[in-house]
Amino acid sequence: MADRHVATLRHRLACQLDPSLNRQDGLTPLNALITLVIIIGIVMAVLQTEPKLYRGNELWFRFSELLFGSLFLLEYLARVWTCIENDGIKHRWQYVFSFVALADLAAVLVAFSVYLGNGGILLRLLLLIRIIRLARLGRFSIALDCILEAVRSRGYELLISAIFAGILLLVSSTLLYLVEGPHQPEAFGSILRSAWWAIATLTTVGYGDVYPITSLGRFCAGLTAITGVCIIAVPTGILASAFSDAISVAKERHRKLPKILEREKD
Amino acid sequence: MADRHVATLRHRLACQLDPSLNRQDGLTPLNALITLVIIIGIVMAVLQTEPKLYRGNELWFRFSELLFGSLFLLEYLARVWTCIENDGIKHRWQYVFSFVALADLAAVLVAFSVYLGNGGILLRLLLLIRIIRLARLGRFSIALDCILEAVRSRGYELLISAIFAGILLLVSSTLLYLVEGPHQPEAFGSILRSAWWAIATLTTVGYGDVYPITSLGRFCAGLTAITGVCIIAVPTGILASAFSDAISVAKERHRKLPKILEREKD
Amino acid sequence: MADRHVATLRHRLACQLDPSLNRQDGLTPLNALITLVIIIGIVMAVLQTEPKLYRGNELWFRFSELLFGSLFLLEYLARVWTCIENDGIKHRWQYVFSFVALADLAAVLVAFSVYLGNGGILLRLLLLIRIIRLARLGRFSIALDCILEAVRSRGYELLISAIFAGILLLVSSTLLYLVEGPHQPEAFGSILRSAWWAIATLTTVGYGDVYPITSLGRFCAGLTAITGVCIIAVPTGILASAFSDAISVAKERHRKLPKILEREKD
Amino acid sequence: MADRHVATLRHRLACQLDPSLNRQDGLTPLNALITLVIIIGIVMAVLQTEPKLYRGNELWFRFSELLFGSLFLLEYLARVWTCIENDGIKHRWQYVFSFVALADLAAVLVAFSVYLGNGGILLRLLLLIRIIRLARLGRFSIALDCILEAVRSRGYELLISAIFAGILLLVSSTLLYLVEGPHQPEAFGSILRSAWWAIATLTTVGYGDVYPITSLGRFCAGLTAITGVCIIAVPTGILASAFSDAISVAKERHRKLPKILEREKD
Repeated sequence: MADRHVATLRHRLACQLDPSLNRQDGLTPLNALITLVIIIGIVMAVLQTEPKLYRGNELWFRFSELLFGSLFLLEYLARVWTCIENDGIKHRWQYVFSFVALADLAAVLVAFSVYLGNGGILLRLLLLIRIIRLARLGRFSIALDCILEAVRSRGYELLISAIFAGILLLVSSTLLYLVEGPHQPEAFGSILRSAWWAIATLTTVGYGDVYPITSLGRFCAGLTAITGVCIIAVPTGILASAFSDAISVAKERHRKLPKILEREKD
Repeated sequence: MADRHVATLRHRLACQLDPSLNRQDGLTPLNALITLVIIIGIVMAVLQTEPKLYRGNELWFRFSELLFGSLFLLEYLARVWTCIENDGIKHRWQYVFSFVALADLAAVLVAFSVYLGNGGILLRLLLLIRIIRLARLGRFSIALDCILEAVRSRGYELLISAIFAGILLLVSSTLLYLVEGPHQPEAFGSILRSAWWAIATLTTVGYGDVYPITSLGRFCAGLTAITGVCIIAVPTGILASAFSDAISVAKERHRKLPKILEREKD
Repeated sequence: MADRHVATLRHRLACQLDPSLNRQDGLTPLNALITLVIIIGIVMAVLQTEPKLYRGNELWFRFSELLFGSLFLLEYLARVWTCIENDGIKHRWQYVFSFVALADLAAVLVAFSVYLGNGGILLRLLLLIRIIRLARLGRFSIALDCILEAVRSRGYELLISAIFAGILLLVSSTLLYLVEGPHQPEAFGSILRSAWWAIATLTTVGYGDVYPITSLGRFCAGLTAITGVCIIAVPTGILASAFSDAISVAKERHRKLPKILEREKD
Repeated sequence: MADRHVATLRHRLACQLDPSLNRQDGLTPLNALITLVIIIGIVMAVLQTEPKLYRGNELWFRFSELLFGSLFLLEYLARVWTCIENDGIKHRWQYVFSFVALADLAAVLVAFSVYLGNGGILLRLLLLIRIIRLARLGRFSIALDCILEAVRSRGYELLISAIFAGILLLVSSTLLYLVEGPHQPEAFGSILRSAWWAIATLTTVGYGDVYPITSLGRFCAGLTAITGVCIIAVPTGILASAFSDAISVAKERHRKLPKILEREKD
């Protein structure tokens, strides 16, 4: 009887933690809470790199570290306990050694190791691991599937436009290296250095830290900027339409899913 | 008999003020006039922040303040008088305490308080309230409905692309903080500071006040710029198609509306 | 008999000059030649503003002026002679006083007056008139009709997005004026001055001559840049699809036109 | 018997080298290898322009030159030997004197001439020829056909938008020359100089090395930036949709091709 209560509790918790077990749309209340905690944790990690904010508030930041570490540990343990409710997972170890679970564990351990005093440079590397926490958001939605589907369905077109963009990058870098190199050796003295200018120009970012000063160099730069606007338009258009297609497909599938599940019940 | 004349006058004025009572397309002459007055009022408010224009012309600016304040007061009183012609409003107080009416009243009062001498800093805050006047333009058209409809229908897609853009912003800020931070502590000394650079790069604005100077930093910045162009393309495409859809739906509805109303008459 | 020869010659010349009389697609040889002369004339006018090229070559530039002036005079006279071949023009004076013909005459006269010695500042104003010569290219194609058709068909959508862009421009200018104004009075000391920054940011040009330096200012600027990318996407998408539609309609009409004309012959 | 073995070997090699003889999709293993070698060769050529990398490693770079030269010579000889397997080529000389084969031979010869000691300036010119090697990638795919097809099918629309962009470039350059020229003769002293600013603004690159400083100049520049965003949208949209169409047509043709070939066999 107690076992059955525990099993019911575990099933409910699993449904709350894993949206794929849950047939209803959107985030479960528990998942929404975890998402909020992750976002606050990331914001805290970002804020504590700012010396003006960190100095004088070290204790508060360390306390928040401990708090978030404990919450993530709790969530990790709950996931390990409930993972066997998912039909795709035969044994608990299968989940424990999955990439997602290991990344969760690493985030938890690093959070505590920081609290225990290994500060300084480790603190900085920790930030990169913390960003992986955001990948958990992918678990809450079909967003990642959509993006991957969109990129896969138009992979050929995207590759072609990437090749053309690469050729344009190479040609414009070489041109500016030949034309501007002798006049500005620091900025255009090699094709690698010219490439920094070429990327800033082709993506229309245009920092303005390096720019051609000779007439011929400016002519080539103008051509590069104009061609860049045209070349960049191609992957832009492909990605936009691919993403739009993938989402409409995902919506269609999502709309049909409940009906199929109901039919299978009968 | 006089009452009937007044009622007819009020009905005509209501039709002139409220385009939703008016079945014909476009702005009524009175609404067009009010729009023009609002635009001139905003232009005057913008111009008087420029010291070169304001000095020596204080009287003219104050006179225009008084004039526009009086016109807006007149319009406000007319709206309160005619509001009961609208079937959606049961009682005059319902309109008087609506957000739109309170914003109108605030704009009128602030305009007069400025004239009475409370200048200086209040004058500056007044400008923000004045900009709300532009929101009145939304009353003249179905534009806001279209925008809201477009954003609502693709909310899920827009949220996904916003999450991805946010992750990219976070990853690139952290990368540049790690790589460039030790070399340029003022510009990349924290993730918050790097984020200023990352936003300028991902939106392709590229002010050029901060930019990486190390080879590795430039490599990461180049990757950020290229990925930014791709990531920005997704919400761009979604918003463009969503807006296009919403407008065609609105046009269709608008085209059918008169026929439905005529049928209801029969 | 001689009259008939002259009439035939005039008809042939009219067909060569006016592509609307000519049923075949593309430019006539004479029109292609005139287009080339106009382009060379504009290039010469652009080049002679450059002191390094002009000094020492004054005679060559003046000679080219005389040459192009004579060619344009010849073309003008030919157009006046042949204009009555066009059914739309009842009387020669009707053509002579049309805007297009008067602009042609002005360009010819100014070209000669320069040759006769009125140099200096007049020379500069002349350039603006010369650019009108390019409007002649519109005569050679249905391009202008397509653009006008595209803009007209989506006028309502474009107006809405222009209003939203304008509101965003006003709000961001006011925000930066309030936040950055006290710190950088030269760059953000009035809403007009802030607007220069706001336009550079919203269009993603980002010169970098003015940019916020306070934390709050940078936060507002980041929001402006991100919202700008979204707002700019709307008219971009509308214009692109509208232009695409208009051209496919024009092609369809063009494809059907010869068949209709042939049926009318029968 | 030996002849037959040789013929079989030549046929297999031809199938490996020329993807058009090969009915299966994608790159052959040999072609993938050659592509990799070309990319490594280009990367080496780019790297050796950087003095920091080149100095001290001259021998390694020269050795890689010799290696890549030998590989390209081997590939060239293999192509000459197998070219007669292609039905489109009647005689070996026809291939040898084709543009593609001559470019290959030039790349091979220059690679060796560099190794033999003709360094300095020739080395730089060599880089431009090396980039042509990338054009070989076009042989491996139908990408170039797609791009050419897309540009050809919308040539008329692209020309119109190019003309409008050109007119806008000319008008904005002239305006800034007239307005800003007297104040900044170095940056806006001629239409040619203004054009450098105008290109940077219309493509939204915005280096920020030159920008207007007068109020009227900034007003004109703001108008230019806004119009530029609209004008640039047109070719962007046309190119994106044209590219998308061309790729779907190419996919359709590719899907049907094997069936047609099989029918022809019967």
